[in-house]
Amino acid sequence: MTSSTLPSGTAVQAESPEQVFDWIDVRAQARGRAGLTRQVRPRPAGSDALDLASNDYLGLTRDKRVAGAAAAASLRWGAGSTGSRLVTGSTELHTELELELASFCGAQAALVFSSGYMANLAAVAALTGPGTAIVADQLIHASLIDGTRLSKADVAVVAHCDPEAVRHALATRKKQRALVVTDSVFSVDGDLAPLAAYAEACGKHGAALVVDDAHGLGVVGEGGRGAVHEAGLAGAPNVVTTITLSKSLGAQGGAILGPRRVIKHLVDTARSFIFDTGLAPGSAAAALTALRVIKEEPSLPERARNNALELANRLRAAGLTASEPTAAVVSVRAPSPDAAVAWSSDCRKEGVLVGCFRPPSTPDQISRLRLTARADLTESDLDRAVEVITRTAPR
Amino acid sequence: MTSSTLPSGTAVQAESPEQVFDWIDVRAQARGRAGLTRQVRPRPAGSDALDLASNDYLGLTRDKRVAGAAAAASLRWGAGSTGSRLVTGSTELHTELELELASFCGAQAALVFSSGYMANLAAVAALTGPGTAIVADQLIHASLIDGTRLSKADVAVVAHCDPEAVRHALATRKKQRALVVTDSVFSVDGDLAPLAAYAEACGKHGAALVVDDAHGLGVVGEGGRGAVHEAGLAGAPNVVTTITLSKSLGAQGGAILGPRRVIKHLVDTARSFIFDTGLAPGSAAAALTALRVIKEEPSLPERARNNALELANRLRAAGLTASEPTAAVVSVRAPSPDAAVAWSSDCRKEGVLVGCFRPPSTPDQISRLRLTARADLTESDLDRAVEVITRTAPR
Repeated sequence: MTSSTLPSGTAVQAESPEQVFDWIDVRAQARGRAGLTRQVRPRPAGSDALDLASNDYLGLTRDKRVAGAAAAASLRWGAGSTGSRLVTGSTELHTELELELASFCGAQAALVFSSGYMANLAAVAALTGPGTAIVADQLIHASLIDGTRLSKADVAVVAHCDPEAVRHALATRKKQRALVVTDSVFSVDGDLAPLAAYAEACGKHGAALVVDDAHGLGVVGEGGRGAVHEAGLAGAPNVVTTITLSKSLGAQGGAILGPRRVIKHLVDTARSFIFDTGLAPGSAAAALTALRVIKEEPSLPERARNNALELANRLRAAGLTASEPTAAVVSVRAPSPDAAVAWSSDCRKEGVLVGCFRPPSTPDQISRLRLTARADLTESDLDRAVEVITRTAPR
Repeated sequence: MTSSTLPSGTAVQAESPEQVFDWIDVRAQARGRAGLTRQVRPRPAGSDALDLASNDYLGLTRDKRVAGAAAAASLRWGAGSTGSRLVTGSTELHTELELELASFCGAQAALVFSSGYMANLAAVAALTGPGTAIVADQLIHASLIDGTRLSKADVAVVAHCDPEAVRHALATRKKQRALVVTDSVFSVDGDLAPLAAYAEACGKHGAALVVDDAHGLGVVGEGGRGAVHEAGLAGAPNVVTTITLSKSLGAQGGAILGPRRVIKHLVDTARSFIFDTGLAPGSAAAALTALRVIKEEPSLPERARNNALELANRLRAAGLTASEPTAAVVSVRAPSPDAAVAWSSDCRKEGVLVGCFRPPSTPDQISRLRLTARADLTESDLDRAVEVITRTAPR
């Protein structure tokens, strides 16, 4: 082993520059044996494949209004924002987007980041510290976990979607301040966190609640206002919501929504805001236009949800173990990582793109296909999806 | 104080939801007293101001070819990449960009991220672990620091640009594996790390070297190939380079360049790659086009460097304390955070945009103006800049 601590007094064995990364080959071989090797598969611009793998829940990323807004903004403002949001990287587009996001979701204020990952790092790390106890659902997104690692807080990981576990952790914490951290719609299975119960526990125990509503915005709640809004928590003084601009909004980026003083605090202290280049103007404009499309077509979110229910029901009727969708995500269990890879590969060969989630992307070690039901799927798309997925299923 | 650990046996005082974020107001007041409040200043699309604040070193972000490529790609591919790079978020554009970046900089392979911050998190966190010693320059970028926080490695922070300190830390480390982490061109003062000496130390002590070349690419080295190339380290088997697509390349995003097995390892293990939405096609296309512009116009990098030297010389001749630029960044010392803010504000009123860096963005606690000398600055731009900056300087 090259990765262990040296016994006291032992000198380091200097490897040649060519050998320095040999440990990587050892790891790669172990992953290969475990069926956990990943592959980047670049896609062409045009394809006849049926996409059940992307997070383009409302089918807006190629919408002419949305893509056209990205194009027009790139020409008008330039291809990049040119600097940190605090130097030259904030355009009037960013501000407009922040105002409309906050207004749509019912928050006092919003702050746009270059990715949802960066927003989550900020929401957790900048709102905690050594004097804080974090109470985190065991299946929160990797970016929230990294946020807890960047904070210097005590971290209690609690059972999935379990308000009683959250209450207990809050009641027995050793720090004055506390932050409960959860996804709203969980990415892998598409299940919904008990947000109202969490908020009640936070209220009782003097805690703040951070909710990653990446998979809720544009799909869940009245007109797609998200799971936090649906739970009656929009504008709550102790609730902070994070979202992405890259799923229902078809663009790139992320945002944090919350009380005005929280947003101001992030501007002053969040490292992933201060030390990062601002979001490209094209992405800000695309997200803003997508938001306006959702406001103009409030039936879009419901169509995504209904398609997910239909897809799950039909897969279950065909004998597969499909999740109960609460948003646009449906997961279908596979017996092993290898079987999941083979299954998704067979679907792809038949022209149906599905996600394949394996450890460590699935914290419960269960591999599955992950299907997303876009708002613009037709009846014949659903027929084709169900036919291919069931026919190629492992026996 | 509300942020301390509770004495044993003490019950937490539950605050009302309205009070949960009261600690933020206390912090805000303290920052206000210290002159450390930050402000987002959205800029309009068109402006007559002279920009010495952005990182658009080559003036390419609004170049018609670059902005046009962003627009065309948004229309062709959509406004977003629609998913993780490992699901649907990799387009042929991403692959093309990775191949050309690697080829230009002389690396075996490259991997594109949604931001340079995310690339740095990956380069440090995914190449280390509990069995690793990290040796980090004390002034590395915040994103590299966060990478060290996310790793579980031992971290030795060493004096700025001090090869002897690096050698000592490597020789006395307690772990077999070691990673030296540095910026190439430091963001705040624009000074250059002794990369060749670091590489020699790494070679002698069996360590890897991670270099953030964000401010070197497109400015330093033959045709803008960056500081790692200039130091003769391109393609070295133990060197990994990170870059951004948002500075000289005028777009958004970041990348890691290095040995093929390192890039493959990142695909399989880097959390900020696996769990993040891929870079928007418009940003990938803009960066690719900017790279081709640099190849076609190899005098651009030199023009940026010469403008920086000229600017620094003239400010120094006027009695100011300006840095010795090695790339496109010039810093000018200010006597205090408040004076730096007032100075940059006065420059802005006179139509000259300059950066203002204060703690905690300046790890040495010295506030300064930060000026960037773009390749496309004219003689009269330089005259105007020097006149305004010297006239508004604090006495």
